[in-house]
Amino acid sequence: MGLKSFLDVHPDSHFPLENLPYGVFKPEPSCSARPGVAIGNYVLDLSVVSSAGLFDGPALKNSDCFNQPNLNKFLELGRPAWKEARSTLQKLLSATEPTLRDNATLRAKALVPMDKVQMLLPIAIGDYTDFFSSMYHARNCGIMFRGPENAINPNWFHLPIAYHGRASSIVISGTDIIRPRGQGHPSGNSPPYFGPSRKLDFELEMAAVVGPGNELGKPIDVNEAADHIFGVVLMNDWSARDIQAWEYVPLGPFLGKSFGTTISPWIVTLDALEPFSCEAPKQEPPSLPYLAEKTSRNYDINLEVSIRPAGQGDSHVVTKSNFKHLYWTITQQLAHHTINGCNLRPGDLLGTGTISGPEPDSLGCLLELSWNGTKSVTLGGTSRKFLEDGDEVIFSGFCKGNGYIVGFGSCSGKILPSLP
Amino acid sequence: MGLKSFLDVHPDSHFPLENLPYGVFKPEPSCSARPGVAIGNYVLDLSVVSSAGLFDGPALKNSDCFNQPNLNKFLELGRPAWKEARSTLQKLLSATEPTLRDNATLRAKALVPMDKVQMLLPIAIGDYTDFFSSMYHARNCGIMFRGPENAINPNWFHLPIAYHGRASSIVISGTDIIRPRGQGHPSGNSPPYFGPSRKLDFELEMAAVVGPGNELGKPIDVNEAADHIFGVVLMNDWSARDIQAWEYVPLGPFLGKSFGTTISPWIVTLDALEPFSCEAPKQEPPSLPYLAEKTSRNYDINLEVSIRPAGQGDSHVVTKSNFKHLYWTITQQLAHHTINGCNLRPGDLLGTGTISGPEPDSLGCLLELSWNGTKSVTLGGTSRKFLEDGDEVIFSGFCKGNGYIVGFGSCSGKILPSLP
Ligand SMILES: [Ca+2]
Ligand SMILES: [Ca+2]
Ligand SMILES: [Mg+2]
Ligand SMILES: [Mg+2]
Ligand code: NI
Repeated sequence: MGLKSFLDVHPDSHFPLENLPYGVFKPEPSCSARPGVAIGNYVLDLSVVSSAGLFDGPALKNSDCFNQPNLNKFLELGRPAWKEARSTLQKLLSATEPTLRDNATLRAKALVPMDKVQMLLPIAIGDYTDFFSSMYHARNCGIMFRGPENAINPNWFHLPIAYHGRASSIVISGTDIIRPRGQGHPSGNSPPYFGPSRKLDFELEMAAVVGPGNELGKPIDVNEAADHIFGVVLMNDWSARDIQAWEYVPLGPFLGKSFGTTISPWIVTLDALEPFSCEAPKQEPPSLPYLAEKTSRNYDINLEVSIRPAGQGDSHVVTKSNFKHLYWTITQQLAHHTINGCNLRPGDLLGTGTISGPEPDSLGCLLELSWNGTKSVTLGGTSRKFLEDGDEVIFSGFCKGNGYIVGFGSCSGKILPSLP
Repeated sequence: MGLKSFLDVHPDSHFPLENLPYGVFKPEPSCSARPGVAIGNYVLDLSVVSSAGLFDGPALKNSDCFNQPNLNKFLELGRPAWKEARSTLQKLLSATEPTLRDNATLRAKALVPMDKVQMLLPIAIGDYTDFFSSMYHARNCGIMFRGPENAINPNWFHLPIAYHGRASSIVISGTDIIRPRGQGHPSGNSPPYFGPSRKLDFELEMAAVVGPGNELGKPIDVNEAADHIFGVVLMNDWSARDIQAWEYVPLGPFLGKSFGTTISPWIVTLDALEPFSCEAPKQEPPSLPYLAEKTSRNYDINLEVSIRPAGQGDSHVVTKSNFKHLYWTITQQLAHHTINGCNLRPGDLLGTGTISGPEPDSLGCLLELSWNGTKSVTLGGTSRKFLEDGDEVIFSGFCKGNGYIVGFGSCSGKILPSLP
């Protein structure tokens, strides 16, 4: 059974007292952006809670971190401040605590119905990195493009492969995505074609949000990496497969990815995910010492992708996967990222890479589901090989607790036609 | 013959009245950072000039863009503001203008000896992109790693290849670089080794600084791209070749680059470079229409790399190249970058890629100069295949005018040993 709030939280809600994910919102379009946490069908305005003097612990008492247009300042404070905020808020929202429950004026100011708010990017993202940490995804892509003998490149099992992504084009769930134009891979020896992408895809990912960073030249130990991760969001790394295929040798993906990346508005903290941690896959060959964790943990997070085809009212599930399928953990990703001395900053985003599972119905992108367009994916009465204009792609994610759910809400985006 | 300032500017100075490059500096360690321009052996403090009301044109009169810790706000204003600032400053510093010349108090406040100031990163860099636009560099790398038959990948002649770089680890000239640790490419089938990079290299590059950006989804036309570029700096894209070689398939360079990238403190404007523009190389096959420029221009900028070997007082020139060797122009790079809708922001940095020329003594990195460590590069009484701890690498760049020089100053960094 779950914790009890004075607010009515439905057992199917993604946002019970056990969760308390952080976001940034505007209560009204004319208001300034401010941090909030989700609770049931409400957003608790942390600028109001802070101004009322209710963050009274040592880390937060004199901080203005909740009077900011993003969470970066709170992230920088680190786990002691995060724990303090969580315990303050769990108490404040509990059924037995009168402070907010019995103060109608404060409640009216502090609790905003979720369907009234506008959600914004919760963080200012300095750098965005995308990993490639699902073995199933790596293998499938390898089989498609290089054949089954050399499906996975030898480096893959030794290090969490990654590339730098584009930070400027990260958008919040609900933002439309304009179909990119670009050069597409020619068949055979014909010249490249130019025009709207013909192979527009989603990629089912999650992303870790960096808390305290590190100085340039000072790597973070893998066993301390968790203290540098605030939480996790859903992420759709939209991908134009034809543009990507033509451009990516030898320097990696560029315009095939940089036209847009969507994240969910609510950052679910590692503290809220802790009850859902599970053993990570055994790594063979064993990692080098700098990647060897005392305990190597994943999280059991159910992931689901639906598509609402252009012109239809209903969406249809196209795949179900799980965060626990990742081969490289997010703490290994972070430690690897800094081993050369690279500095991370609060609010940096580390994407997991496409999370495919072992089953045919757990593949994390249309490239895999349609096997590079060689077969169709059924969607109610219609079908797709890649995304069409007007299609809406909706990710959701949740952990199943005993009598409650710790959820991520959704991460969605609709495809608009290319510019003429 | 050059323009004449009331300040004594030596004919060999990089910073005559024709140049006026922009940087950010602290006059004293305890002062706040502010914008300045270089003139002879002085830095002109633009916050002082602005506070004195001397920017009196329509674009700058009511702007606080020079009371900022970086140039981003000025960059955002675009070419009309840049032209206005240039003409105001050229007049203010000229031999015949009394306003500053005859006001000893204002001169004492506004002009700081260059050897007294601390230079800082001139811009807040949201995203950093590195291109691969020298055909000579691309061909040499290709020959080394794939042989002469397929030296340059077919996509290279159709689009300016690029990857996203790491913005957080961009540092200002003079910052020490700690030798990165990481996984190095094994020989044959042996497992990867781990430790300090054994193949630490420089890359001779320049980088364009973006002015006004574009909205997500709205590409910039190649013939308007120059209005989105404020100016150019020298850039050393330090590279750990062993780390890069092991990690880069299939997603491109990552930790082999992200441990540090050094830029020069002075941004030389496109307006100052205009007299040195020259025809860009003919492109064959012809570009797709979105990359076809009405006039395709490069700049005649002499580039030089010296190394001061560990423990020695003197530096030795190891290569001389020129910006004009680039195959893809910076305006083509920018137009390509946005063709998929990707948004640029003021202060974004677009590296050219290593600028190698056609001659053996014009190669832009040790990888090429030592042909991947198969021969030695002589340095006075010693020699190098790759960089050693204590080596200092110094780039310089200049355009030769009639009786004056438009220069970039230098871009330097010294290698410190790896962490134990
Ligand atoms: Ca991805
Ligand atoms: Ca480079
Ligand atoms: Mg993307
Ligand atoms: Mg670099
Ligand atoms: Ni890359």
